[in-house]
Amino acid sequence: MNILQSVKFYVFAFILIVICNTGHTQITNDISHDEAFKVLLAAKQNAVDSNVLVNIAVVDAGANLKAFIRMDESFLGSIDVAIKKAKTARFFNIDTGELGELTQPGGIIYNIEHSNEGLITFPGGIPIKNKEGKIIGAIGVSGGTIEQDRAIAITGAESILD
Amino acid sequence: MNILQSVKFYVFAFILIVICNTGHTQITNDISHDEAFKVLLAAKQNAVDSNVLVNIAVVDAGANLKAFIRMDESFLGSIDVAIKKAKTARFFNIDTGELGELTQPGGIIYNIEHSNEGLITFPGGIPIKNKEGKIIGAIGVSGGTIEQDRAIAITGAESILD
Amino acid sequence: MNILQSVKFYVFAFILIVICNTGHTQITNDISHDEAFKVLLAAKQNAVDSNVLVNIAVVDAGANLKAFIRMDESFLGSIDVAIKKAKTARFFNIDTGELGELTQPGGIIYNIEHSNEGLITFPGGIPIKNKEGKIIGAIGVSGGTIEQDRAIAITGAESILD
Amino acid sequence: MNILQSVKFYVFAFILIVICNTGHTQITNDISHDEAFKVLLAAKQNAVDSNVLVNIAVVDAGANLKAFIRMDESFLGSIDVAIKKAKTARFFNIDTGELGELTQPGGIIYNIEHSNEGLITFPGGIPIKNKEGKIIGAIGVSGGTIEQDRAIAITGAESILD
Repeated sequence: MNILQSVKFYVFAFILIVICNTGHTQITNDISHDEAFKVLLAAKQNAVDSNVLVNIAVVDAGANLKAFIRMDESFLGSIDVAIKKAKTARFFNIDTGELGELTQPGGIIYNIEHSNEGLITFPGGIPIKNKEGKIIGAIGVSGGTIEQDRAIAITGAESILD
Repeated sequence: MNILQSVKFYVFAFILIVICNTGHTQITNDISHDEAFKVLLAAKQNAVDSNVLVNIAVVDAGANLKAFIRMDESFLGSIDVAIKKAKTARFFNIDTGELGELTQPGGIIYNIEHSNEGLITFPGGIPIKNKEGKIIGAIGVSGGTIEQDRAIAITGAESILD
Repeated sequence: MNILQSVKFYVFAFILIVICNTGHTQITNDISHDEAFKVLLAAKQNAVDSNVLVNIAVVDAGANLKAFIRMDESFLGSIDVAIKKAKTARFFNIDTGELGELTQPGGIIYNIEHSNEGLITFPGGIPIKNKEGKIIGAIGVSGGTIEQDRAIAITGAESILD
Repeated sequence: MNILQSVKFYVFAFILIVICNTGHTQITNDISHDEAFKVLLAAKQNAVDSNVLVNIAVVDAGANLKAFIRMDESFLGSIDVAIKKAKTARFFNIDTGELGELTQPGGIIYNIEHSNEGLITFPGGIPIKNKEGKIIGAIGVSGGTIEQDRAIAITGAESILD
């Protein structure tokens, strides 16, 4: 192919892709179970290295549970907290700690925790983004200090970018 | 009976029926599904014009869900927040933002959010009134800032007055 | 382009599309709010034509509420039934009536209705597919007979294929 | 005391301590997170080999969630069903399919599904035993036919005996 043909080719291919992806239905991205496992294991390894006992939950783009692990001797009460942190992070596409700054007494969304069968609005929930920056799920970690939980969650979320 | 007697009879019978029916049963006003759609579409148009992604819920005079729409890419967590804002606005016939001023720590109805399976008491819920000023339902909007949500809700609620 | 070039072109374009859609993250399809509205209005028109009063719910690919309408004078109890029918149809990618045949006493999944905060397993819930046959959401209808509910739901679901 | 008396004293004291500590606290066995992962991965591998898309949940001796994975494209409704199968299997230390035979109309524990926030009493839930035959948790599988779910669950449960 000469250059002109080559250019025409790529223009056409681009248009084709756009057409395929356009239309009425939304094209969305969702975390795969392989990715969810990768996130879970990276977070768990970080928890082991930090000597922290945690529960780790991963939800998909629809905020539905995708993967979960509870480390031995970690808090039983953290099962639900970890899952709710992950869901909250995806429900509002936000670091749960940032959300919590807005839900304090006098805050602009005070007591939003009463919605969605209970939100958790302190640190430990982080949206998971793919390489294109699209949110494809979220991770929630509970069991350590909020700083530890948040650091472990970030390590997990960022592991899929490797 | 001659005609005059006949007329008097029917007039009397009519008055009797009116009296009987007035005394016992409440005559109430309720939003129709056409009105609910009008409210929903006016609010959605306002959201589109303002470049905000929201969830919009309309409840009827009985605080039961009447109409709902979730815009693409809007927060998943806003489904329940929008519905709860609409219900809260009708439960207490109030702008949810005004209610929130009374539910803060030390406030006269502190933590009322625990009732009714969860209230939302920040701005975005507005009662819907008909032309006679009677409350016939409520609208709840969630997804933007609380100021945006409230403005969109008001636009929706007022649309049925046109 | 001659035929050979043309063939090479399409092969290359196809490979490119496959590459774009492959990788680690899942590429999924989801109903848009325009489609959800179309489904809702087609179902409602069918209900009006059939002289049936119904509640109609549309959920997205994640089984989250996308659009809803309750016709005047329709059953209040049908709000939740319509939503649960839509969710059930998406939870298991099935006509809810078919599911119900398996949940009877002695059936292979007897009493599955106790899961997912309550399923509805009689007719009226139908998955919504796009033109490529991918499930992008579901519709639930409640208020008429089960035959009417199912017929209205099918009309709604198929409306996006036009 | 001479030496013999001294020995007798310590032997007696030791026996006393053993008796005291035996009587009051239970010594229990619980699945570790490494074992839970092993169960999960063995079950998932079996599902992949059988070309079935499932959700897999593992609960510990306390019937609390220990590990979970949802395979891509598996039913959304199976998240809760898998978890409930695992919990049900541990709640009553039984193959959930066997329990279901007793919960039919006229059965001796008819409608026990209403307890414990919802039980699932068809096949797919299996207790996990250690090499000594002690129950240390349970596995629940949902997404395939009930025969497939049960076979995958058994494969998972038995994997820790290797």
